[in-house]
Amino acid sequence: MAAGNSVVLLSGGLDSATAAAVAKSRGFSLFALTFVYGQRHDIEVEFARKIANFLSVTSHEIIHLPDILFKSSSLVRASGKAIVPGDGVTIPATYVPARNIVFLSIALSYAETIGASHIFIGVNAVDYSGYPDCRPEFIEAFQNVVQMGTKSGIQGNPIIIETPLIRLTKGEIIKLGLSLGMDYSLTTSCYNPSGDGIPCGVCDSCRIRQKGFSEAGIQDPALHRNYGK
Amino acid sequence: MAAGNSVVLLSGGLDSATAAAVAKSRGFSLFALTFVYGQRHDIEVEFARKIANFLSVTSHEIIHLPDILFKSSSLVRASGKAIVPGDGVTIPATYVPARNIVFLSIALSYAETIGASHIFIGVNAVDYSGYPDCRPEFIEAFQNVVQMGTKSGIQGNPIIIETPLIRLTKGEIIKLGLSLGMDYSLTTSCYNPSGDGIPCGVCDSCRIRQKGFSEAGIQDPALHRNYGK
Repeated sequence: MAAGNSVVLLSGGLDSATAAAVAKSRGFSLFALTFVYGQRHDIEVEFARKIANFLSVTSHEIIHLPDILFKSSSLVRASGKAIVPGDGVTIPATYVPARNIVFLSIALSYAETIGASHIFIGVNAVDYSGYPDCRPEFIEAFQNVVQMGTKSGIQGNPIIIETPLIRLTKGEIIKLGLSLGMDYSLTTSCYNPSGDGIPCGVCDSCRIRQKGFSEAGIQDPALHRNYGK
Repeated sequence: MAAGNSVVLLSGGLDSATAAAVAKSRGFSLFALTFVYGQRHDIEVEFARKIANFLSVTSHEIIHLPDILFKSSSLVRASGKAIVPGDGVTIPATYVPARNIVFLSIALSYAETIGASHIFIGVNAVDYSGYPDCRPEFIEAFQNVVQMGTKSGIQGNPIIIETPLIRLTKGEIIKLGLSLGMDYSLTTSCYNPSGDGIPCGVCDSCRIRQKGFSEAGIQDPALHRNYGK
């Protein structure tokens, strides 16, 4: 069931691990990309390596982005801003300017360079932090850029942006990943972990993760890392 | 006539220099970005520095892109491919996968990070090499991504992609730049210059430049570099 090559965006988090597991289950070879951009939670890069290894990816590239980007976000250490929970209504201070646009653009260029037909990204617009670049309207707009702005696109064979999680709840995502054999002990979600990688338990991302495992009715296998303590 | 801050994509070529001069003439402060991506003509980065200096930009950042990108293009040294003129119908081998998508995405993130309201890019769809990411349809699609995928966009104040040259001939671009005081001796266009920066005179970009100066009825001030010899 070889489906060809796909580029998968792998952050080290639960969603991207699940999206990558979906790509693998559909028979794709996985070319994983992980981005380093001054994030406080850069320990996620080590988790991305574990996930890449677990999923037997064909290659895993770690991309260092220019440090002039993203510095207005509290997720970035250089911002000097504290991580505070969002209000669930407005876009929170953790918003990273155009992050998924940059990630998808680089994935797109890489896909066209290596001849991959699909890009998998674990965006989700149900249990999420309210970022505009996680919504279906954004993905549709980006797909149109692929159609209009790439050689493969105007030749009628555009690279496809796959978002298998976009309309699932966090609980549904976890159940999907477990059904595919994903090991969530290899993932991390906290925006602001302590130096040894222990999650804070109170940031938006920790809380959404906890809600997901609760909905799925199982214990978070990362709890041995004192998740949420 | 302060118009605020703009990000300008500055390659070292004639078009981007003109687009930057337009931005300056409209009263914008210029935050220039130049990309290094293994291009054969990386001497253009030195020309970009000269142009940035000439236009008194507020800042000029040189961005090194990951070397896994773009390697299928003959413009990139690591491709091992020779530069050959295009046929004017199909997309030529100099096509760089998703180049302007990557450039605009990084410019967009930078603009939103620093609070710039406009991005100037010197794309042109008249006298050009046939790249899909230089056409108005692509720019419109990318503008829609800004609307859908950024905080400023969904808050009704999207960053504007400015393409002041998109429907001009090369001759018109040169006349526009000269009317704004641009010094084209500071620009380079050749895809495949010799080690000391002397243009080949036969690549698509050299030929389009020569045609432009011929149409404008003036001599290319870069001819002192033996342009085209």
